[in-house]
This record gives sequence, C-alpha cells and structure tokens, in this order.
Amino acid sequence: MAAWGERLAGVRGVLLDISGVLYDGGAGGGAPIAGSVEAVARLKQSQLKVRFCTNESQKSREELVRLLRRLGFDISEGEVTAPAPAACQILKERGLRPHLLIHDGLRSEFDQIDVSNPNCVVLADAGEGLSYQNMNKAFQVLMELEKPVLVSLGKGRYYKETSGLMLDVGAYMKALEYACGIKAEVVGKPSPEFFKSALQAMGLEAHQAIMIGDDIVVDVGGAQRCGMRALQVRTGKFRPGDEHHPEVKADGYVDNLAEAVDLLLQHADK
Amino acid sequence: MAAWGERLAGVRGVLLDISGVLYDGGAGGGAPIAGSVEAVARLKQSQLKVRFCTNESQKSREELVRLLRRLGFDISEGEVTAPAPAACQILKERGLRPHLLIHDGLRSEFDQIDVSNPNCVVLADAGEGLSYQNMNKAFQVLMELEKPVLVSLGKGRYYKETSGLMLDVGAYMKALEYACGIKAEVVGKPSPEFFKSALQAMGLEAHQAIMIGDDIVVDVGGAQRCGMRALQVRTGKFRPGDEHHPEVKADGYVDNLAEAVDLLLQHADK
Repeated sequence: MAAWGERLAGVRGVLLDISGVLYDGGAGGGAPIAGSVEAVARLKQSQLKVRFCTNESQKSREELVRLLRRLGFDISEGEVTAPAPAACQILKERGLRPHLLIHDGLRSEFDQIDVSNPNCVVLADAGEGLSYQNMNKAFQVLMELEKPVLVSLGKGRYYKETSGLMLDVGAYMKALEYACGIKAEVVGKPSPEFFKSALQAMGLEAHQAIMIGDDIVVDVGGAQRCGMRALQVRTGKFRPGDEHHPEVKADGYVDNLAEAVDLLLQHADK
Repeated sequence: MAAWGERLAGVRGVLLDISGVLYDGGAGGGAPIAGSVEAVARLKQSQLKVRFCTNESQKSREELVRLLRRLGFDISEGEVTAPAPAACQILKERGLRPHLLIHDGLRSEFDQIDVSNPNCVVLADAGEGLSYQNMNKAFQVLMELEKPVLVSLGKGRYYKETSGLMLDVGAYMKALEYACGIKAEVVGKPSPEFFKSALQAMGLEAHQAIMIGDDIVVDVGGAQRCGMRALQVRTGKFRPGDEHHPEVKADGYVDNLAEAVDLLLQHADK
C-alpha cells in the first residue's frame, strides 16, 4: 500500500461519522471513545475543514449535539449533516408535504415543513411507533397517490441496544416497498446525494475530502463511490474481518480517531 | 382456443378457491356469490372429486367452515387445504418448534404443535398483532438461530376491507427477510408444495385436476406451474385486464362458479 503521504495528499477536509467514532451509544447517553474529544479539538485548530456526517434518525440534531457537548466534544448543530435536515431540504425543493412516520424525538426537525394534505411519506426508525396501525396509515397514504414517493431516513437492517438487537428502518422500508410496488428514496449514508450535501456544506470537491467511519460498507464504501477517500477506525462496529471485506477496501485502517488525526495533521494537504 | 371438450378432457377433480369464488368477504361475514351454493352442491353429486384450496390465514378452518355453512355451503373441515394446517405438517415433518406471530383466530390450528424453545418463526397476517415489539421478538428469535427458518403463511401484499386497503403478511415477510438476510418459505398458494398437498389429499395427479379461482397469478398461474389446468372466474378480485395478463393465460374464463360447473359436468372426464 502507498505511503500515508501519498494516500492523504491534497486532503483539505474531513467528514467524521459520530456513533462508533466519537462515542459509543448506550444507556444514559454513552461514553466518548478514548482520545476522540482531543482529536476533534486538534482537527478544528488545524487548516483542515471539519464536518460531522451521521445517520442518526431517532434524535434531532439539537438533542444529539447536546449529548456530545456534555461528553466534551466541540460541536455545533450547523456542523452536522444528518438525514432529517437533508430530507427537509428535498421536501422543500420538490414541494413535497410528508406524512411523517418518525420518532417523536425527531419531530422538531420537521417544524418548518408543511404536513397538510400529504403527497409523500417520510419513514424513519420510529421504534414502537412502527405499529401495524401506523404502518397501515403510511401504506394507505402511499396507495392514494398517483406517484407514491417514499423517503426513508437510512436503510439499516438492525442496530444493537443493551436490551438486544433491534429492527431498524430498512426492514420497514422494505415492507412498504413490497406492498406498494415502489422503490424508496434513501436519505442518509451511503446515498451519494447525502455525502455530496456534506461536501457542499464544506465547500469542497470529493477528491479534497476524506471520510472517517466505523462502517466498512456505509461509511467507507459509500464515501469512495462518491470519489472521496475513506479511513476505517477500529472502534464502534468495526470487526477484524472488515479489513478483508470482499468488495470494499479502505484507503487506510487506523486504531481510532486519534490515530487518524495524527496521520492527517502530518500528511494532509502537503 | 380449443373447444371446451378438449380443454377439460380427463379432468377428474376440482380445486375451488373460497374467497371471491364461493363468497365475498365483508363485515358481518359476507355473502355467497350468486349460484355458488348450488354449484358446489352439483359438483359434490357428480363423479368429480372436490376440494377447497384457500390462503385464509386470519381464521382457523373451523371458523371459516362455520361461516360458509351458515351461508349455505356443503363443506367440512376435512375438505379444506389451508396454509396453517399445511404449515403444521411441515413443522412436524422437520421437527420445527415455531415462535408464532399470528392472529389469535388462527392459534387453535397450532394446538398440537410444540412451541417450546423455538427453532423457527411462523408468520401470518396478524393484523394489529404485527406491532414493533412482536416483530422485534420474531426478529430476535431468528437472529439467535444458527440457520434461521421463517415460514410465511402466504405472501400477499395487501387486501381490501370495508375500511380500506390493509397491509398483508407479505410486507412483514419482506421486512424480516431483509433484516435477517434470509429467504422465507411461503406456505400457501402459489407455492407448488401447497397445491401438491391438495392434490395428494384428493388422490389425483396434477394433469387430472383443475383449479378454479379469482386470482390470475396466485390461483391460475400457480396451479398451471404445477401442471394443473385452471379457470378464472369473473367474480371476486377479477379485473377485465386479467384476460390479457402478460404472463398468465387461464385455460378458460367463466362468469362465475356456476358456469364453470356447467362446463365441467358437460365435458370433464369424457
């Protein structure tokens, strides 16, 4: 593999995944990953542009940022690219008025959106809100539309909580896709539009930016398909097998965000 | 198209779909389709063997038969091929102990089945029972198995009730398939095994039997793929476009069950 200097040449901005890179979620809010608080601070003091890019769709950005600041991170809402605000932009651009099947914790993100007389459905990980009655209502809304539009905030299969594995939004997206005979529009990683909106917010081209994440497919593969470079950290949901993934090869594997930042500050934009 | 005599030659048995052929469901139990009560009676007085073949999976056979007898039909439980009993046979043959995610109305069909320490999931149209909590429990059962087995009673996308369209079991089957990365085993029409079990119960070979149904894909296409012949009735969910379906062509289209029986009694087994 090429030397780090070559692999990181010309990098002017960094996209950071949040869960599994900055902190590990869990009961009571979770805990920062060792060295990550300082690593973010050092990045921000450098010439590199920094942005956060997450698929979190149960919490609003406000709630997520409050949690991270409590853990010691230097982060503000305006620095976060998340599915809900990206979906709001799409809704506004296309004159879409959503029927929302989402978690109550996310509802404030849609405060400025017209939800009267819906002409699309926005689906997110709504937990217990994904009842038969709520799913059927979303289904009926879609079936009444001439051109049904289903926007899904991510397409994860499941995630892990202390109580065990939990069905994620992707499963319910598949249910509605099959019932309606349609294909959902996914907003969030690994969608190229989502990465592009983060790049746009940084004012960078894809080849000038690098993604740092713990998910080999969603973070690394997704960013690379957009023309970005990507590092995988060995924290969060990383598994040793990821370094021999059959389809995705990261531009580098690092123990944690702190090591990634060491390398970037040494080699990037040289 | 060949004359009816040719098309029906050698038919020795008839498989009848129930909903949309015998009766139309609805609030208060529904109503028989004109001429169908007499048509079933005439078939039973003939030399032809008769069996009922349904995808009903909210009601037990007992409840379904009670409803049909109240409407005037000559039918008994032993004459009905339905997904739940077929699933029970599969469970017994393969030593499977199901976690049941089904409607309470269907639970009695599984009275003789060991449901301790489950090593598979049986999914049916459970209506309101398809809550996030119940779906997640089924998902967790599957994910704990080395070889997850998901048995789905049918794979319908949706059905119609007086209150509107309702999500059917197929949507939830797709959700679990995606989340677990598996393929469900579908018990019910159009599964070939399901049609074969009905043929076996009649003691007939596929070429000796004809299916009569209102669904061009599930009834007609499914039966034909098994080597049976099939008629579509212009009742129930029949739509004029079905007679020009791009993939499935029935061996004949008839106005209703009464006309089908007229033709069969005149031409079959000659």
